[in-house]
Amino acid sequence: MSPKITVELLRQLRQAMKNSKYITEPIQAYIVPSGDAHQSEYIAPCDCRREFICGFNGSAGTAIVTEQHAALWTDGRYFLQASQQMDNNWTLMKMGLKETPSQEDWLISVLPENSKVGVDPWIIAADQWKNMSKALSGAGHSLVAVQDNLIDAIWEDRPSRPSTKLTALALKYTGFTWQDKITTLRGKMSERKISWFVVTALDEIAWLFNLRGSDIEYNPVFFAYAIIGMNSIRLFVDSKRLSDPAIREHLELDSPSKPDLSVQCFPYESVYTELQAVCAALEPKDKMWICDKASCALTQAIPKSHRSAIPYTPLCLAKAVKNATEIQGMKMAHIKDAVALCELFAWLEKEIPKGTVTEISAADKAEELRSQQKEFVGLSFPTISSVGPNGAIIHYRPLPETNRTLSLNEVYLIDSGAQYTDGTTDVTRTVHFGTPSEYEKECFTYVLKGHIAVSAAVFPNGTKGHLLDSFARAALWDSGLDYLHGTGHGVGCFLNVHEGPCGISYKTFADEPLEAGMIVSDEPGYYEDGSFGIRLENVVLVVPATTKYNYRNRGSLTFEPLTLVPIQLKMINTDLLTQKERDWVNDYHRKCRETIGAELERQGRKEARDWLIRETQPIV
Amino acid sequence: MSPKITVELLRQLRQAMKNSKYITEPIQAYIVPSGDAHQSEYIAPCDCRREFICGFNGSAGTAIVTEQHAALWTDGRYFLQASQQMDNNWTLMKMGLKETPSQEDWLISVLPENSKVGVDPWIIAADQWKNMSKALSGAGHSLVAVQDNLIDAIWEDRPSRPSTKLTALALKYTGFTWQDKITTLRGKMSERKISWFVVTALDEIAWLFNLRGSDIEYNPVFFAYAIIGMNSIRLFVDSKRLSDPAIREHLELDSPSKPDLSVQCFPYESVYTELQAVCAALEPKDKMWICDKASCALTQAIPKSHRSAIPYTPLCLAKAVKNATEIQGMKMAHIKDAVALCELFAWLEKEIPKGTVTEISAADKAEELRSQQKEFVGLSFPTISSVGPNGAIIHYRPLPETNRTLSLNEVYLIDSGAQYTDGTTDVTRTVHFGTPSEYEKECFTYVLKGHIAVSAAVFPNGTKGHLLDSFARAALWDSGLDYLHGTGHGVGCFLNVHEGPCGISYKTFADEPLEAGMIVSDEPGYYEDGSFGIRLENVVLVVPATTKYNYRNRGSLTFEPLTLVPIQLKMINTDLLTQKERDWVNDYHRKCRETIGAELERQGRKEARDWLIRETQPIV
Repeated sequence: MSPKITVELLRQLRQAMKNSKYITEPIQAYIVPSGDAHQSEYIAPCDCRREFICGFNGSAGTAIVTEQHAALWTDGRYFLQASQQMDNNWTLMKMGLKETPSQEDWLISVLPENSKVGVDPWIIAADQWKNMSKALSGAGHSLVAVQDNLIDAIWEDRPSRPSTKLTALALKYTGFTWQDKITTLRGKMSERKISWFVVTALDEIAWLFNLRGSDIEYNPVFFAYAIIGMNSIRLFVDSKRLSDPAIREHLELDSPSKPDLSVQCFPYESVYTELQAVCAALEPKDKMWICDKASCALTQAIPKSHRSAIPYTPLCLAKAVKNATEIQGMKMAHIKDAVALCELFAWLEKEIPKGTVTEISAADKAEELRSQQKEFVGLSFPTISSVGPNGAIIHYRPLPETNRTLSLNEVYLIDSGAQYTDGTTDVTRTVHFGTPSEYEKECFTYVLKGHIAVSAAVFPNGTKGHLLDSFARAALWDSGLDYLHGTGHGVGCFLNVHEGPCGISYKTFADEPLEAGMIVSDEPGYYEDGSFGIRLENVVLVVPATTKYNYRNRGSLTFEPLTLVPIQLKMINTDLLTQKERDWVNDYHRKCRETIGAELERQGRKEARDWLIRETQPIV
Repeated sequence: MSPKITVELLRQLRQAMKNSKYITEPIQAYIVPSGDAHQSEYIAPCDCRREFICGFNGSAGTAIVTEQHAALWTDGRYFLQASQQMDNNWTLMKMGLKETPSQEDWLISVLPENSKVGVDPWIIAADQWKNMSKALSGAGHSLVAVQDNLIDAIWEDRPSRPSTKLTALALKYTGFTWQDKITTLRGKMSERKISWFVVTALDEIAWLFNLRGSDIEYNPVFFAYAIIGMNSIRLFVDSKRLSDPAIREHLELDSPSKPDLSVQCFPYESVYTELQAVCAALEPKDKMWICDKASCALTQAIPKSHRSAIPYTPLCLAKAVKNATEIQGMKMAHIKDAVALCELFAWLEKEIPKGTVTEISAADKAEELRSQQKEFVGLSFPTISSVGPNGAIIHYRPLPETNRTLSLNEVYLIDSGAQYTDGTTDVTRTVHFGTPSEYEKECFTYVLKGHIAVSAAVFPNGTKGHLLDSFARAALWDSGLDYLHGTGHGVGCFLNVHEGPCGISYKTFADEPLEAGMIVSDEPGYYEDGSFGIRLENVVLVVPATTKYNYRNRGSLTFEPLTLVPIQLKMINTDLLTQKERDWVNDYHRKCRETIGAELERQGRKEARDWLIRETQPIV
C-alpha cells in the first residue's frame, strides 16, 4: 500500500480556503468529516471527500487542514492502515491514546488568534457542530458554515450521486407493513406531543418504508429524506426511481388506501426548501423531532423554538428491537452464512498446502460460496481476509499490492458477512492451518475467554451494553493485553451491518439499554503489530435469561449466538479455560453441528459436513 | 420513624409561590435541590431545605412542589428511608427504575401550558440549570431564578450559618504548602491560557489552602469561596475567623513572602459583587474557569465570553491523586481505624449474648474506640449500624424509634468511618454472631466475589472507573440479584469521604481515568427489603500492577486495600469461591494479621489481637 501524494491537493485546498468564490472571508482551517449528508458510516464514492484529500479510506476518520498543518483523527482499528495510506504531509492523530489531543484542543493549539474554521454544514452532525463551535468560540475562534464544499471544488472527476433501482420488501421479511410502522411512529409522536419528524438516516428511511436500494456499497439503502407529519408523509427521493410500477404500488402512490397514509414524493434536493415551507406553517406549539446526529444544515433549518433534537429517533429504537419475523429471518440468514463458511474452511484446508490461495482469492471464494445461498444479495462489508502481520491491521482489506498467500505457518483472520433478503451477517474466525505457536494460542484463548464472558453474561433488564465491555477484556487485561476497539455493534436486518442505538463499547456513548430482540456483535480481539491479529466474532441475539432469583422482578437477559461457525480448537490452550468455559465451547459446537450439520446435509454438501463434524468434537 | 407532617408547610410554600413579595409573577412549580451554594453533598443545618419541606434527610434527593403535587426524587440507597420519612402528600420518585420519569418529564406531564418553574439560582448547579431550562423551554415552559429562597421564607426557626474555628494543616500531613499548590495551579491555568479561576467547592478550598474547619458535620470544611488570578488570591470567608494568629501566620496575611502569593480576604457574602468587579475589569481575551457544577448564580455572573465551564477543576484532579505524604497518612489512619474495629468486634462478640447491645450503643462504642486513637477528629459520616431488616435501608442511621438489639439471630451491618488529621476512613463489614442461613451466606459470598473482582482487577492505565463496575455485579447478576447503588467513590485525605472525579459506578458520569495514587472505595452489596442487608467495603489505593506482557507500553493498574479489617469467614460459602478468590481472602487476612496485629500488640490491646488471629485463619 503506497501513500496518496497530497502536496498538490493540499495546495489547491488551501487556495480555496482563501478564495472569495467560496467564502466571504478566508478561513484558517477546514474540517473534512467522514460522513455524507445523512451521517452514514459507509458512503458512496461521490461522498468520499476525506479519502480524496488524505488517502485514508477507513470507515471512520476526520481530516483537518490548516494553513500549515494537515491532520487526520481515527481510532485504533485504523492506526496502521492510516499511517500506510497517508503521505508525510499528514499527521496521524491516534484517538483513544492519552497523549492525542482532541480536534478542538489541537485546533486551539495551532491556530492564530481569532481564526475562522470552516466546515460543510451538510456533512457535519448538529451535535458535533455544537461541541466544536463551543470549544472554538471559548478560545476566541469561530466555526463557520461553508455552503460550497471545498473538496468538491477541487475534485475534478468527482463521481455523480447514485440512484439505483428500489426493491419493495414483502411482509414475510418485514413482519409489519410500512403503514403499520407509520401508525406506530405517529403514536409515539403523539405520546410526546410531537407533530413532525424529519427522518435523515438512510437506514431508518429504508426500514420505515420497507424499501431497499443499493446506492451505497454493502448497505442496502438509498438516498432519501422523509418528513412525517400526523396527517402527511413527504418522501424526498430521485423521482426517476418512482416510475417502477412495483414501487408505485408498494407506496400506494396512485391510490392511497387512507388519506393520512398518502405519500407525497419530492425530489431529493428539495428537502431544505420543503422543510423551510413546513416550518413556516407551524403553529407556535408545534414541535419537530430531528436526530441530534442529523446534519447541521437541516437541523438549523428548523427554528429553535420548534426543534426537539433527540439522541436516538423512535425509528432507530424500533428498528433495533427485531420483531419475530425479523428474528426468524436473521436466524435463517446465519444458517446459510455458516454453510458457506464451513465450505470455505473445508476448501481452504485442502487448497492451502498447494500454495495457491491468497487473501484475495480466499475472500473471493467466500463470496462465491455465499452467493450460492438463497436470497443472497451481496456482501455486508468489504471482506477482511488477512494473513500474519496483515491481521494486525484491524480493518484490513486485501489489495493486490498487500496480498499475502495463506500458508501453514501464519495465523489467518477472516471477518466477513453478507446481505440476504432475510437478514444480515457478520462473522470473524481466526484459524491456523499448521501448528500455532504457544503465544498465538495463549492470546487466542484470552480473546475466546472474553468472547464467552460476554456471550454467557447474565444481566438485568435495563442494562446498557457498555457495562458489558470490560467482561470481554478482563482475561487480556490480567496479562497486560488489550484491543483498541469496541466489543460489539448493533446489526441491522437486511440493513446496515453497523447500527445504533445499542452496542458494547468502553466508550460511554449514550447507548440505549439492551432489550430482548436486539441483535449485536460480540467481537473481542488481540493485535500484535507486524505479527498477527486475532478476532472472534459472533452475532448474538438478546434473549430473556432464567435465573435462580429475580431481584425486584426486573428479569434478566443473556445472549443467544446466531452465528454458528466452529471456533478452531487447535488455537485454544484448554488449560487456560475454566470448566464453565469448556462447557460453553462444547455446547456451542453441539449447536453448530446440529443446526448447520442438518442444513449441510439438506444441501448435499458432504465435504463441508465432514469438516464440521471433525471441527466440533467436544473438548475433554 | 414516623413521617414528617407537611400539609401546613406545603400550603405556606404554595402561597409563597404566588406572593409578589418574592416573585414578580406566580410560579407553578418550585424546585428544592439537595445541596447548598457550594453543591456540597453533606450540608449544614441551615441548608437542609429539602429535608425541611419533605422530611426526607438522606444525602441525595430533589423535591419539586407544584400547585397540585409534591414529589421527591432519590436513588436506590434511599427508597425505603424516603418512603418512611415522608407523609402521603409526597410521591416518591425512584431514580434508576425504568418506569420513573425524570424531573423534567414529570414536570412537563403535570404542568399547565406556559408554566414558570422557580428555583434558587444559588443552590442549583449551572449544568443542572441548563439541562432543566432546555427541557422546560422545549415544552413551552420556563425555568426562572427566584432570588429569595422560598423555603427560607417559610422556615421560621432556621439555624444560622456556622463559622467554626479554622485549623492550619502542617506540611507533614499535606506534603505541599498552599503556596506550592497555588503555583502548580497557576501553571495549569497558564498552560490552558486561563487567567482566573473561581473556586466554589468547599473541599477544594480547604485542600488548596491546607486549612480545615468544621462548619459541616463529618466534613472538615468551612464556608468560603476563592478567586485565583495569576497575581492575586482572593479568599471569601467570615472575617471573624481570621483573627486567629495561627491562621494569619499560615496564610501570611500580615507579611506575604511574595506579592503574587498575598492573600486578600473578603467577607463570605461579598463573593458575588467582587466577582462582578473582577469581571468588569477583564481584558477581551481573559478566560475564567468555573466548574460546571458551581451555582447557576455565580456562573452567570461571569460573562459568557469570558467563562470557561469545566466538568472537573484542576484542584479536584490534583486533590484526587494523593501525594506520597497523603498516601502514608491514609495508610496510618486505616491502621488506627482497623484497631478500633477489631476491638469493636471482639467487644460485640462478648456483649451481644447479654442482649444489651443495640444499633445505637454499638455505633457509640465504635466511635468511643476510634476516639481513643491518635489524631482522631470525628466521624467521617453518620455510622450505619443496622440489624436484620434495618440493614436493607442502604443509608440507614439508627434512631431511638428504630433501634434494634443485636442478637445471635440476625445479620449485622456496620458502615462507619472517621476523620483523623492524617486521613479519612470508610469501612463496611457485615457479620453474624450466631449461625447465618444458607441463603444469607450465598448472598454474602456473591457480594464478596464482586468485591474481590474489583479489588483484584488488573486494567490498563487510562481506564475509567465505571468500566470496572460490572465486575462487582457479575456474580450477583448470574443469580438474578443486584444492588441499586454504585460500587465505589473517591475518598478524600482528611477531607470529604465522598469526592470526585473518579468512582466506580454503572452511571456513566464523566469520570476521570483512574491513576496511581487515587483512592476509592470498593463496596458492592445486596439488600433484601424487610430481611437483611449485606455490604462489604474496603478503601483501596490505585497502584501500578506487574503483568506478564505490556501492550503498547501503557502499563497496568490494580488496587491495594488500605482497609485491613477481617472479612467474617462464617458468612462465606467457600464452595462458591474459585481457588483464586480463596487465595485472595487468605492473602488479605494475612496482611490484616501482620499489619493490624503488630499495631494491636504495640497498643497492648490483647483481646482484640486474639480476636484478629482467630478471624484471620486461612481457608483451606
